This record gives sequence, structure tokens and C-alpha cells, in this order.
Amino acid sequence: MPPTTSHPDADLHPTASGLAQATVEAHSAAAPHAGVTLYSGWFCPFVQRVWIALEEKRIPYQYVEVNPYDKPPSLLSLNPRGLVPTLEYDGKPLYESNVLLQFLEDAFPDHGPRLLPEDPYDRARSRIWADFVTSRVIPSFHRFLQDTEGGEALEGKRREFLGFLKEFAAELHHEGPFWGGEELGFVDVVLGPWGIRLWVFDHFKGGLGIPGEGEGGEDEEVWGRFRKWLRAIEERKSVKETTSEQEFYLPIYQRYADDKAQSELAKATRAGRGVP
Amino acid sequence: MPPTTSHPDADLHPTASGLAQATVEAHSAAAPHAGVTLYSGWFCPFVQRVWIALEEKRIPYQYVEVNPYDKPPSLLSLNPRGLVPTLEYDGKPLYESNVLLQFLEDAFPDHGPRLLPEDPYDRARSRIWADFVTSRVIPSFHRFLQDTEGGEALEGKRREFLGFLKEFAAELHHEGPFWGGEELGFVDVVLGPWGIRLWVFDHFKGGLGIPGEGEGGEDEEVWGRFRKWLRAIEERKSVKETTSEQEFYLPIYQRYADDKAQSELAKATRAGRGVP
Repeated sequence: MPPTTSHPDADLHPTASGLAQATVEAHSAAAPHAGVTLYSGWFCPFVQRVWIALEEKRIPYQYVEVNPYDKPPSLLSLNPRGLVPTLEYDGKPLYESNVLLQFLEDAFPDHGPRLLPEDPYDRARSRIWADFVTSRVIPSFHRFLQDTEGGEALEGKRREFLGFLKEFAAELHHEGPFWGGEELGFVDVVLGPWGIRLWVFDHFKGGLGIPGEGEGGEDEEVWGRFRKWLRAIEERKSVKETTSEQEFYLPIYQRYADDKAQSELAKATRAGRGVP
Repeated sequence: MPPTTSHPDADLHPTASGLAQATVEAHSAAAPHAGVTLYSGWFCPFVQRVWIALEEKRIPYQYVEVNPYDKPPSLLSLNPRGLVPTLEYDGKPLYESNVLLQFLEDAFPDHGPRLLPEDPYDRARSRIWADFVTSRVIPSFHRFLQDTEGGEALEGKRREFLGFLKEFAAELHHEGPFWGGEELGFVDVVLGPWGIRLWVFDHFKGGLGIPGEGEGGEDEEVWGRFRKWLRAIEERKSVKETTSEQEFYLPIYQRYADDKAQSELAKATRAGRGVP
């Protein structure tokens, strides 16, 4: 049963910390000319997709911290559901993180790097695997994280999640380190924020279960590619500079691990559904 | 409980009928130069999205009928999950209907009409509402259709579905008839195949419940827009010419209405999940 108190997540740490704090401070001035305003929750992985893209592309932007569990009128006037990330562009609101990534490509064509390949087939393939992340990997991440049964039920969810990660890893570029090769791209930005949050399974669920170096058996090559991808994501400047200190994520993910979180995604997972 | 027999849907009517049959026959020759092959199930609304786009854009294509419940090796070699629609382009496979729609825009830029607007903001808005269709409207369509409880449970599902349709309708262009105005576009093609299948609720579930002309009360203007949109979809040449005779859809939707269908979407709905 969900708790009966309303918005218990509203008391989360109010601002970004660590390297992300400096990034926020560098983008606190009013929305720049020909730029955008990012309405953000510092801890949200969907936000981080867009935040990474803004940093990678060096698009002028203002960062506005909002608490999506305690939605301010400034956010609700742009987006009645109060979703983050919301982007304001020329006075008009847009949302849905994957849509925003493509919007930044379309609206700022001179701001490299391009995240989607130019070739139509390669673009489509990137979209297929970005969709796989959102429709399979993330719901499975949350079923695993929010498990409260333990035992065989937990193991089943762990196996399902590892199966999706392995299916993803099998599609990674053979040399890497990124999904499409040497350059960071759309699929990397779409999965990256969950990649750097995989520690939650070690912390709360007795371990993630990805085989260590040399311990992957017949899947060693595929898991090797995944480990290489994950290191490249973790070391990427734009990722580090949009990530806060772990201690402030802990109470948030504690609520997920206890299946008490009240985010839209947590509630959808509890109802057995996918990413809302 | 799902039935224990495997693939009971494998005995469905094997080919398109009615106006769709003539379209199939006109595209039965081997894949044309610089064209594509569409691996299709004639009855599948996800296929119909792509089929409509191919017809609208007059892209050269070969139509290949496959039964996705009894997957032939030709399909499995392209797409191990055996999904339809699968598109073969230059010997390479692609799938996921919304990805395919964008691929046709990218790969055949000279084949109008363009389904996505040129303006980056308008493109993003189209993607947001196409996503709304796939993440909200279609799962709700299937929860309603596959309800076997009846009574208040059925009414709740009807209300949810009508709520999503009304939310969609409120975003329709004020003059219409299509989502973005006079021209058929991406959002229309994404929802259209479910629009022309709304009869299933009259047939199986005691009525859909959209207010009739003049009976919408304070929502009359919004429902009026929806009715206008639906008429325009139903009358569209590309829609009619990719639609088979109703009698052959009936046994397929009977299985959904009895919650015995074995498609991936039917199973996901039964498990409480969204579009897989």
C-alpha cells in the first residue's frame, strides 16, 4: 500500500551538490538570449538526459531548480502535470526527455556534437535502442529496485534486468566505448543516467550481479563491452558535472527501495505499468 | 489466467480483404529499386501506421504478409522477436512503428507529404502527443477492451479511456480536421489506426461513450473537434485502402474482448503493463 501522507518526497535535499552545484551556479542567470530555461530536479535521471545534452552542446541555458513533488506555480503554468524536465524556449514549454533531446538537435543545429547520426538507417537504429531503454530497461530497473518481496521474486527481477542489460550490451559498438563508437550519442545519453545509478542495487538489493572482469564465461565479451561503456559514461565530463554527491541521492533511493516513493514512475511501477 | 494453448491466434484470416486487398495486390512484386519491403500483418494497427505513411508518400514498396503469431523464418532472420511491422531497406531490418515513420521522413525526403512539421518547436509538440498516444491512449484502449470484470471495473476503464481521448482532443487544431490543421501529420497517423477501431467498444463493451453531436455539454466543443478528426481519418484514402473488411477483424477482437489474445500487447496488458 502507498503511504497515506501526501508528497512525502517533498522534504528531499533542495539543491544540487558536488560538481553539479558548480554547474547550476554557472547557469543561474536569467534565460540567455536565444537560449532555453531548464526546469529541473537535480536528482532526476530524466532531467539528467537533457542536462547532459545542454552541457555537451554548450547551448546557453538557465537552470531553475524545482521540486516536482511540491510543484511551484511557475512550473504548473508551463506544464499542468508539473513534469520535469520541462524546457522553456521562446516563452513556450516542452517536455518528455527524449523529445527534448531531439528538439535540441533540431533547434540548435550549429551546436555540436550531433547526438543522432546523419544516416537515416543509423538514426532509426539509435531510436530503436533508445526506445528499448525506455520501454524495457527502465521499467525493469524499477521493478527490481522497488521489490519488497525478496527471495525468488527479487532474483527473478534481477535476472530480468540483467537480461535487458545484456541485450543492450550485445548491440554496443564492438570497439566502443560508446553505443555508436568513439563519440557519445543519443543512446548513451538516454541510458547514461541509469548507468551511473546502478550502485543502488549494490547498496539496497544485495548486488547487481554483472559478472566481474574475466568472470563472464561465454558472455565475457558482451559484459566486457558493457563495463567499458559504463566506465566511459562515468568518466564523461558532462555526466560528472550534472551529478550530485551520493549521500543526497541515498534517502531518495531508500524510498524507492522500500517501495514508498511517490514519483509518477514509482507509482506506475507499483501499479505494474511502464514509464508513464 | 492466460490460456495454455500456444498461439491460438495463428488461425486468423490469412490475408487482407476489401480495399486493402487491392493495395496488397498492387505491391506484391519483389522489392523495387530504392524502395522498401514491409513485413506486415494486415490486421495490425501498428503496421497500419507505417502502411498509411508508405501510401501517403507513394514510396515504392513490396508488401509481404506474415503471421506474427506463426513467425516465418524470413521474418525471424530480420528480427529475432518477429515483430511487425518490420521494414527491410537496402537489405537491413528496422522495426518499431513510430521509429519507422520517422525513418521514412529521413530516408525519402523527396516523398511528400512531410508528416513532421519543419519548425523545431512544432516537431517536438508532435512527438510529445505521439508519445501520449503510445504511452497513455493505447494501453488504456487495451485495458478497456480486455476487461472481463464488467460493472464498475469496466466503467472505470471506460472513464479512463475517454479521459485520455478528451485530453488528446483538447490539443487538436481548432479548425482541424487533422491534429495540426488542414494536412494529415505524424500524430494523426500514430492514433488513426486506433480511431478506426473504436467500433470494437460498441460491439463488445456496450458502447464507447463519446457524446453524440450536441450532447457534449460543457465539453461539446472539444468532443466536436474529436468527431471531426475521426471523420477525416475514416474518410482518408490511405486509411481506407489499408483497412480490411470488418468481419475479418471480428474474431481477432473477440479474443481481445475475452482477454484471450496472445499478441505481445495483449499479454503486456494482461500483466498490467504498457505497450511493450
